Parts: sequence; C-alpha cells; structure tokens
Amino acid sequence: MPSGTLTKGKLYLVPAPLDFMCETQAPLHQVMPDGSLLIAARLSHWVCENAKSTRALLKRIGLVHPLSCVVQDQQIAELPRLVHKKGDHAAGLDTSSLLAPALQGHDMGLVSEAGMPAVADPGSSLVRAAHDAGIQVIPLVGPCSLLLALAASGLNGQQFAFHGYLPQDAALRVQQIQSLEKQALKSGETQIFIETPYRNQALLSALLTSLQADTRLCLAADLSLDNMQIHSLKVSHWKKKGLLPDKHSPVVFAFGP
Amino acid sequence: MPSGTLTKGKLYLVPAPLDFMCETQAPLHQVMPDGSLLIAARLSHWVCENAKSTRALLKRIGLVHPLSCVVQDQQIAELPRLVHKKGDHAAGLDTSSLLAPALQGHDMGLVSEAGMPAVADPGSSLVRAAHDAGIQVIPLVGPCSLLLALAASGLNGQQFAFHGYLPQDAALRVQQIQSLEKQALKSGETQIFIETPYRNQALLSALLTSLQADTRLCLAADLSLDNMQIHSLKVSHWKKKGLLPDKHSPVVFAFGP
Repeated sequence: MPSGTLTKGKLYLVPAPLDFMCETQAPLHQVMPDGSLLIAARLSHWVCENAKSTRALLKRIGLVHPLSCVVQDQQIAELPRLVHKKGDHAAGLDTSSLLAPALQGHDMGLVSEAGMPAVADPGSSLVRAAHDAGIQVIPLVGPCSLLLALAASGLNGQQFAFHGYLPQDAALRVQQIQSLEKQALKSGETQIFIETPYRNQALLSALLTSLQADTRLCLAADLSLDNMQIHSLKVSHWKKKGLLPDKHSPVVFAFGP
Repeated sequence: MPSGTLTKGKLYLVPAPLDFMCETQAPLHQVMPDGSLLIAARLSHWVCENAKSTRALLKRIGLVHPLSCVVQDQQIAELPRLVHKKGDHAAGLDTSSLLAPALQGHDMGLVSEAGMPAVADPGSSLVRAAHDAGIQVIPLVGPCSLLLALAASGLNGQQFAFHGYLPQDAALRVQQIQSLEKQALKSGETQIFIETPYRNQALLSALLTSLQADTRLCLAADLSLDNMQIHSLKVSHWKKKGLLPDKHSPVVFAFGP
C-alpha cells in the first residue's frame, strides 16, 4: 500500500492517577473512567515523561483490562529532558521520530507521571507537532490536581491563572507573590502555582509573610486520595492555625481575594 | 444528641458529563470514574445550577448504580441566579440555608450542568462558605472541558490563564484580544476563554482579524464526545482553511505563541 493512503494513528492523551510517589495508591477505577482505561489498555506505543512509571501504570491498567501486549513488549519512548523546561517548546525535539508510530498507522498514548499530560507537565510540543502532522489528538478524561484544587478552593473559578513554579530566589519570589496578589485583587483572578514537595514549607512561609491578611490562601495535597488535605482560609487565619503541609506530598497552592 | 456533637456532612463536588444540550450523549462510564458515580449515587442532598438537569443526571447515574432514594425524593436546591455572575462571590447568597443539610450531618453534592462545578461555572461561593463552616470539601474526578481543551491544544500547559467570557462589545472585545495576545507573546502564557454557542462564529472572526498571523489558535468542541472536534493551527492557516465552529456546540477557545 503506498504510504500516501496509509491511515494515520491517533494521539491519545492518557491521564495518570495522582498517587505517583505517594504513600497510598487509589484504585484505578476510583479515579479514572472505564472509557479511558479501555483505550489505554489497547495502546502499545507510548511517549512519556518516564518509562519506568509508564510501565508501572500499564501493569495497573492490565489488572483492570487486558493489555494489547505484555508490558515489556510495549514501545515506550521518553520525552528528552530538554523539553521538560518551562514553555516546553524547546528547539531540537525530534517529534517526527517520536510520532513515527502514529505516522505509520498506530494509535499512540502520551502519558506523564501524574495527572493530565501537557498540563503542568511536559508534552505540549509533541501535541503541537501531532496537529501539524495531521495526527488526530484525543484527550481522555482523568484526574488533574490543578483542576481539583481550584474547584475545591472556594476561590474564583471563572477567572484564574496557573504559573507553574515561582522563582527559587527568595527576593524574586516575594516580588512575584506580591505582583500576583496585586493582579488578583485588581481583577479577581485566582493565582495557582506548584512547588517541589521539599520546598512546600518555605513557600508557605513566604506566602504568609508576603500576602495581605484578608487574602484567601488554599493548599491542596494528596488530591483524589483517601488522605486528601484541602485547607482554604484567610492568611490571618493561616497564621493563627499554623498548618503545615506534609513534606512529602505534592501541594497545589492557590490564592485570591 | 446535642447539636454540638453532630458530625457534619461533607460537600462533594460532582462533575457532570460534557454532553449537556449536545446532540449525542456519552455513556457515563466512558467519561466518569466509577468512584465518582458511586459517591454521587449515595447522595440525596444537592445544590445545583439547574434542578431539571440535575434530575436528568441522577436518572443516568441511577442506571449505573442504585440511587440512595428515587429522584423525586432527592432534596435539590438551585443556586440563585445572582451568584451566576462573574466572580461568583456576590453578596446575599444564603449559604447557611444551602449548606443546612451538611450542617445537619448529611453528605451533599454540588453539581453544575456540565463539567466541574465551581470551575467556569457557579458554585465557588458555596465551596468557600463550606470551608468557613468547617464542612469538608471533596472534589471528585470527572470531565472538564477547559482542561481537555488545554491539554489537546498543543499550547503551553505550564503557564495559562482562563478569562471566562470576553466582552460582547465589538471594540472592547478586540481591545481585550490584543491585550491578551500581548501578554501571551511576552510571557508564553496560554489564553483560554469561552463563548455562548450562537456567538462562536463572531468570536472566531474577531480573533482571526485581531491576532497576529503566527499566533496559534485552538478551538475545541464536543470534548469527550464521539464527535469531538479539536483544531489547533496558526492564525494564517485558520484564514486559509476557513474552518467554522458548529453553531450549537460549546467551544473552548485558546491561543498563544
């Protein structure tokens, strides 16, 4: 068959449960629709953040629905580290090689370590390249910590911004927190960001000393898990309560008026 | 039992499928985790955007898992219209009345017509009041059109902002589009917004005449449904292709560099 007539495969965006590196695991059916699990089970070509965690996820999916082939026979390519950076649209990503299975007619999956690929995670460069190559992109329903945190925060969900990681430099961080608060108070926009778990406590301290007393601050950890923690209160109340985020859990931070 | 020792109920945020007012319906298991459906089925106290669509959703859930009581016996309170406005934190919402079942020990559900309650939809005032009343808030996993659109757009998912509806006034709308584009080009932040279906075409026209040729624009419609449409291309290509959004489908719009 001439390659011109070959039907391209699709690129499915496969969400992963939010229990990566967490102490407890959620049963897959509790947090993933059966429709998403069924599609993931029949794929055998993957692009991912980390091959080891992708194989672990496939093993869990295989306990629910039979996989198209055993895990060790699945074709799993990792996104190179260079596209893990902010913006994600780094030059030099060999998308035609990563998308080769779809160009050859195989459906593919893009998966990250936790949550929705390409949201607060690498992958958007690959999705963009898929569109440009005429490969259909199909996002599957599943958990996303940002979204769960925003909904549960009680903060404005009709206008919000996600900023990824704030600067590590203490002075720059305070400057950005205050600039984001100014924006939040002016427009009502909720400000959302994340931090690597071992810096959670430092970020919370910076927020409590930088934000105004009446600003509402939400910290959400272990979302979708049985030990989920969501605290949403004014900065003045945070100071009184002295709540601490767990050192080991990924936390979503959000604040607004 | 003295009321002081009463255990409060929880407020579950129950996502709804994205097929509200759409021509086709997704089977619930395809787009909702069984865990979310099981919890929804055992609730009998609801706060919602619209009681009629909540009853229709409960009937669909009842086909998958037995409901705690028949639909007509469920207690369903509608959020008053006044909190449907931008920002959602309007004065005058009688949250203690709406949250009374939880204060009396009953688990409750908050649900909107489609997607995640309190995200691009009313409900955040109630969630905020729940936190302030010491009622535990638990967001359940389910579909959210904004998130699916962002992931599938190929646009930057590590920095993004959602703006709700752009101004209806044509001049103001162009002004905001250009201001958002300036912000997007400067920071890399993806700009996301929605429109009522009958104005989709007018908004697309405004975007194509206002945005720069190299800006990437994504329109995503009927997300999570079999007839899902996701188009992500540069403005210059949109002009050549002349793609039109369906008049009847809710569309998520996103653009960025």
